[in-house]
Formats: sequence, C-alpha cells, structure tokens
Amino acid sequence: MIIDKLIDKIIQMQNPTAVGLDTAFEYLPDDMKEGVVDFKGVADAIITFNKTLIDHIYDIVPSVKVQIAYYEAYGTEGLRAFYETVRYAKEKGLIVIADCKRNDIGSTAAQYATAYLGETAVGEGVRAFPADIVTVNGYLGSDGIVPFTDECKKSEKGIFVLVKTSNPSSGELQNLKLEDGRTVFECMGDMVEEWGKDTVGKYGYSAVGAVVGATYPEEAKILRKRLAHTFFLIPGYGAQGGKAEMLKNCFDGNGLGGVVNNSRGILCAYKKNGGTYYEAARKACLDMKADLLSVLGEICAK
Amino acid sequence: MIIDKLIDKIIQMQNPTAVGLDTAFEYLPDDMKEGVVDFKGVADAIITFNKTLIDHIYDIVPSVKVQIAYYEAYGTEGLRAFYETVRYAKEKGLIVIADCKRNDIGSTAAQYATAYLGETAVGEGVRAFPADIVTVNGYLGSDGIVPFTDECKKSEKGIFVLVKTSNPSSGELQNLKLEDGRTVFECMGDMVEEWGKDTVGKYGYSAVGAVVGATYPEEAKILRKRLAHTFFLIPGYGAQGGKAEMLKNCFDGNGLGGVVNNSRGILCAYKKNGGTYYEAARKACLDMKADLLSVLGEICAK
Repeated sequence: MIIDKLIDKIIQMQNPTAVGLDTAFEYLPDDMKEGVVDFKGVADAIITFNKTLIDHIYDIVPSVKVQIAYYEAYGTEGLRAFYETVRYAKEKGLIVIADCKRNDIGSTAAQYATAYLGETAVGEGVRAFPADIVTVNGYLGSDGIVPFTDECKKSEKGIFVLVKTSNPSSGELQNLKLEDGRTVFECMGDMVEEWGKDTVGKYGYSAVGAVVGATYPEEAKILRKRLAHTFFLIPGYGAQGGKAEMLKNCFDGNGLGGVVNNSRGILCAYKKNGGTYYEAARKACLDMKADLLSVLGEICAK
Repeated sequence: MIIDKLIDKIIQMQNPTAVGLDTAFEYLPDDMKEGVVDFKGVADAIITFNKTLIDHIYDIVPSVKVQIAYYEAYGTEGLRAFYETVRYAKEKGLIVIADCKRNDIGSTAAQYATAYLGETAVGEGVRAFPADIVTVNGYLGSDGIVPFTDECKKSEKGIFVLVKTSNPSSGELQNLKLEDGRTVFECMGDMVEEWGKDTVGKYGYSAVGAVVGATYPEEAKILRKRLAHTFFLIPGYGAQGGKAEMLKNCFDGNGLGGVVNNSRGILCAYKKNGGTYYEAARKACLDMKADLLSVLGEICAK
C-alpha cells in the first residue's frame, strides 16, 4: 500500500518531507534561462533543473510533489517536462505525488484516475503520467471520488483530497458552519475518512489522505483528532508562512500522520543563501528536516 | 466580452448548445480504431474524428466544450489532440470552453489561468491551450479565483465555476444547509455573482458563469432567480438524463441565460441512428436545437 511505503521511507529517513517541484521557469538560475525563446526551450531547461535537483535530494527525502499547473502553462512541451520529472523521480525511488487537484463526474473522473494512477487499454503498460498519488477535489461528492479509490485498490496507489487548504481565503467556504454544527472542512474530512475505510494499511492510515494546510494549526488539530485513519499532505510550510511549531497538530504521538511540502523554500534556496541551486536545495532539505524533527522528536512506528 | 459573443451567436443561430467533445477513444467507429496500438495513434485518430465532426457542426452550433480528462488519459500525445481540437474549433469560429475544473491557491491558479486563457512571458503570443472559457472549482475561495477573473478582464475571456453539478452524488456536499439557511450551492452561487460583478456585459451576464446541472431543475430554478448576472453552463442533457422540459428553469424569459452541453448524445449518435458519425452528429445537433426551442420559444435579446 502506497501510504505504508511512504511511511516506511519517512521512518527510515527520519524525514516527513515532500519536496515541491512547482518549478516556475522564473525560479531557474539566469544562465539556465539564457537564450530560451520557446516552450520547448523552457521544458528542456526545467527538465535539466529538476533532474539535477532530484539527484541531490533523493537520498534524504522520501517524496516529491509535482505541481502540474507550472507545466501546463507551457502546453504539451511543459507536460513533457512534467512527465519526465515524474518518471525520473520514480526511477530514483521517490514517492511521487502529482498535485493536480482533479475533479469531475464519475465517467470523467475515471479518465483522470487512468491518467495519473492507472493504465489505458491501448499502449500495453505505457502510463500517461506515472505518479503514485494524485491530489483531488471532493466538491462533487462520492461518485467523483470512487473512480480514484477503485484505481487505488487496483494499482496500489493513493489520493489526497482537499479538506482545509493553506491559502488565505480557504475559510470563505471551508470554515462555514453547517446546520448540523460541523464546518464544511469537517464534513469533507468525514467523507475522506469514509472513502478510505477499505484501504487502511499497517500503520493505521488509509490510501485516501487529506490536504490540510500548515497555515491553519487550529483546524489541523481538529482534523487530526477527528480523522484517525487519514494521512495528511501538509502544504504551506515556508514561503506561505507555516512554521514547524504550527505543524505539530498535524501529527500523531509518534510523529506520524503527515508529510510536509516545501516548494519555493527549496527550489529557490540558492537565491537566498547563494551557491549552486542544487547544493542550496540539499542544504534547505537538511535544515527543514532538522526543523521538523526539533518539534516532532524521533519518528517511529506505533 | 466573451459571454456577449457567445450570446450573439446563440441568438443568431437560435441554438444555445455546446457540443461536448469528450472524445473517448472507445466512441470512435471501428475502422478508425483499427491498427491503433499506441498513444500517438489514439491522438491522431481523435484529431481526425474531432476535426471532421467540427466541419459538420460549426455552422449550426455556437460553441464546443472540450473535456480535457479524455485527452490527459493519453499523456502528452492526448494533450496534443486536445490542443489541436481547441485550435481547430477556434479557427472555425466556435466559442471554445475548456472543461478542466482547475483549482488551486493563488500563485498556482495564475499558472492555470495562463495555460487556458492567457500567454506566458516566453514564446511571444504562443498560447499553451488557446480556449475562450475554462471551467474552475471554487472550493478554495476567492484567492484561487481572482487570478482567473484578472485574466478574463485582461484577455476578454471567461470562466464557469462549479455550483450545482449534474452527477448523482453532487448533493452530498452541495445541498447541505449552512447555519445561515443557505445551501452550499447557494453560497457558492453568491460568490460567483460577486466574482462577476465587474464584467457584466451588454446582455446583463458577466464573464464569470456557473455550472448548473440539467439534472436538478429545482436547484436550477433557485439559482436562476438568485444569480441575475450569472450565465449558466448546463451539463447533464441527454445521456445523463436531463430533458428539455427540465432545462426551462435555467433560462430567463427571453430564452437566454445558459448554454446546454451534450456530449455522448452527439458524439455517439451514429451508434444509435446509423450512418456516418459526422452526419449523425449533425442531425443530433439539429434535433437537440428543435427540442430546446420547443421549450424556450424564440431566443431574443432583452
């Protein structure tokens, strides 16, 4: 089960981090941007940047989260870079989270599940975008999620459903109170717990996780208590303002229960600290690990 | 303003239809599938199917809705077919709705807005996926939507935000009652009306529309009354069970206020009625137009 594999790696490396490969072309060092005039050039430069970065972090972090929007902006060429990044990260043994936030009615959701987690009938084993886990949006309810959970069971994959997002306006809908006393994010969390009940693994967490922003520690506390079998993907650490102390609420007593994403803080570390981007990124990963462990203590199995 | 242009065409053609190019490879006639063994073959076959179909409908329908999931399932090759379909439909004068249901935090939403509605800094006028309108999901609140509405203003484009979706389980979240007495879909509708207030066009409808399923006429009635400046994209007619009589609630007294999508009922008409797929599709479009007008009467400006 993929969340078991992710947790195995987190314990082994003592590091619950997902490096966010939200690789905006603007983030690249000037010499890598020089002379680039078209989408193909952008894609090639991003592939080189990402692969070199992966080479310098794959032995110290368990996972990467690849944000597809930064690749879609450059059309099919950009998506070639997304594919190459996902493929290469998997080759290096990283657990790959495709951050796509996909959602649709059942028949269409099944196409997305195939794209990121499964295989089409044509092409014999060729995968469109070979990720391990994909993020999804549950606004459409169960029949937009079941095609993903079916694929998770069939192919040993996982999903993270948006529950309480890290952005400033997430509360506009998510924090509204329902007639039954729950907030919208609690209601979504309860649905996530239900969607995951058939895939609970050896650590007690299911293949259906939740996105819970580091920027909202109070909501995280409520959700960690409420969703006993739900593993969290935690964005918002670093550039968005989330600090290690705020993350404690996302984890259980053993330092398990979530993986923390950091994108700009790692990709752009060289701008702040100097040196090559890949050495600065490795150092930023080690600093982040130390920061997280200072709050979580030793991470161990229950 | 793009919704003005769409309504101009709807009035001129007396046809509020969007043909849904949710072109699953399985929908293609057997002779077009023969010998196809890889993603490139699938993409080429779908491009041929879509272009021929567009050639036979562009003079009688104002718009197409291209569902990207069916293309993503075949990776970068599939997305080449998506790009070619969007580009060709625009070349033929159709208003092109990219049905992507994208959503994310602000900085990332801006990348999606660029991908479907705007232009990147690199590439001088080359567009990633040159659509007129893109569908989005508002679960993250305003700061995930503003990058899209900013792009709408800058590039004269539009968005449709999911409000009440057509699928069986849409009510699980969307129909829950909030403490203030509104349902979640009414709350989302109110946000949509607010997001559109700066872009209201000559017909009284803004560049920020709503997705409202044909399958829920009671909810549509509530929303049509509540959201005076919100144009509707109406899925669910045909294969999903929506009938013309149920659609009446989505429109204003002049037969304006929405565009009705039909995908499988047009793409697969040949399977039911025989003949070539493109002649059967054209006939299905004319039948659908007659069906809609039988309920709406003449469509005219206010």
